[in-house]
Amino acid sequence: MTAKEILSKTDHTLLRPDATWQQIQTVLDEGMAFGTASVCLPPCFVKEAVSYVTGALPICTVIGFPNGYATTASKCFEAEDAVKNGAAEIDMVIQIGLLKEGKDEALFQQINAVRQSCGESLLKVIVETCMLTEEEKVRVCRVVDASDAEYIKTSTGFAGSGAALEDIILWKSMICHGTKIKAAGGIRTLADAGAFLAAGASRIGASALVSEARAAEMKNPSAER
Amino acid sequence: MTAKEILSKTDHTLLRPDATWQQIQTVLDEGMAFGTASVCLPPCFVKEAVSYVTGALPICTVIGFPNGYATTASKCFEAEDAVKNGAAEIDMVIQIGLLKEGKDEALFQQINAVRQSCGESLLKVIVETCMLTEEEKVRVCRVVDASDAEYIKTSTGFAGSGAALEDIILWKSMICHGTKIKAAGGIRTLADAGAFLAAGASRIGASALVSEARAAEMKNPSAER
Repeated sequence: MTAKEILSKTDHTLLRPDATWQQIQTVLDEGMAFGTASVCLPPCFVKEAVSYVTGALPICTVIGFPNGYATTASKCFEAEDAVKNGAAEIDMVIQIGLLKEGKDEALFQQINAVRQSCGESLLKVIVETCMLTEEEKVRVCRVVDASDAEYIKTSTGFAGSGAALEDIILWKSMICHGTKIKAAGGIRTLADAGAFLAAGASRIGASALVSEARAAEMKNPSAER
Repeated sequence: MTAKEILSKTDHTLLRPDATWQQIQTVLDEGMAFGTASVCLPPCFVKEAVSYVTGALPICTVIGFPNGYATTASKCFEAEDAVKNGAAEIDMVIQIGLLKEGKDEALFQQINAVRQSCGESLLKVIVETCMLTEEEKVRVCRVVDASDAEYIKTSTGFAGSGAALEDIILWKSMICHGTKIKAAGGIRTLADAGAFLAAGASRIGASALVSEARAAEMKNPSAER
């Protein structure tokens, strides 16, 4: 897979707590220049970002992030607010405790409630795999796959560790309702990203891939982007 | 200061992303048994917690937590939702980027907007000191002190590091509108907590102090709690 193909499936991401609008602008410029799938940024920047890119790039944001324990009402409000501000994609963290308590039905209801609040925008459901047992990884995939969400996503990037190839392979083998997979957290190289895509992910969340692609371009400026 | 006095000024805290209701119950039981200032827990548990403690203990929760970059509209909704569910205290993280960009007036407005949403409940403003320069620590204290919030709080416990004694001393020396200080993040012992209170903090956020007090009690069961 070429760098261009990989980047076209990458949510180019900046979610540092101390991010400034100037840094967000840089990431938006990079996303547009390299044709990333979207730029994923904090909710407080969505409105300004949408007006900055004028349709050149989908804006993705995060909800109930990164701990997932906001109330369902708050998650729905946050999603509606983000969509109103122009977000085309919403990455929402599940209430992990519901899964731990075996309250799969409540988790399913929460996901579908947020899905409704997303309207025409995509919903990706972040499950924070590094906090789950193998049994919970199977169970949460069943719940998300049965829900109306478009994606299951591995990680926030704020917990102990990020995406693992084994989890992508596991989920790919068990999904039966067309749910797609986003691998995120700790994916630092185009080679890694390519491996996750080959294993069955449809989308990558990462912050460093554009820099790598740019460095490669500078070494070999005649290559087609 | 006795363990009892220290605990009476401590928000006994459980904010792990994978917290379950069973774990929250334990923390509520501990908070009631040891007379902590409050129990600080995720928004999704507030309603159940309030009904569980039946007035024996104030319930504290977190808003825009831990990254602080939700929109003002979302933070206000989350605060209103928490107050409606019975939260007596709200710990809200600032949008750190506003401070970095020098937008002190916007930050002030955001704090006061959330303050209004808190109604009769206390507002503590978390500034995440470990991400701030010395100049920013001074500036943010001026902004919070000028606002209608009751407390400035050092840290979320989810960033690089937590409360530092120097920061408490700095803020104590410059506060002129009666804003109180909550020290949180990395305070693991009653001795540490006592030092932060002596330096000028009015409230401590911590998860391990009750265990230490209980262990001391078991060693010396005749001592007064």
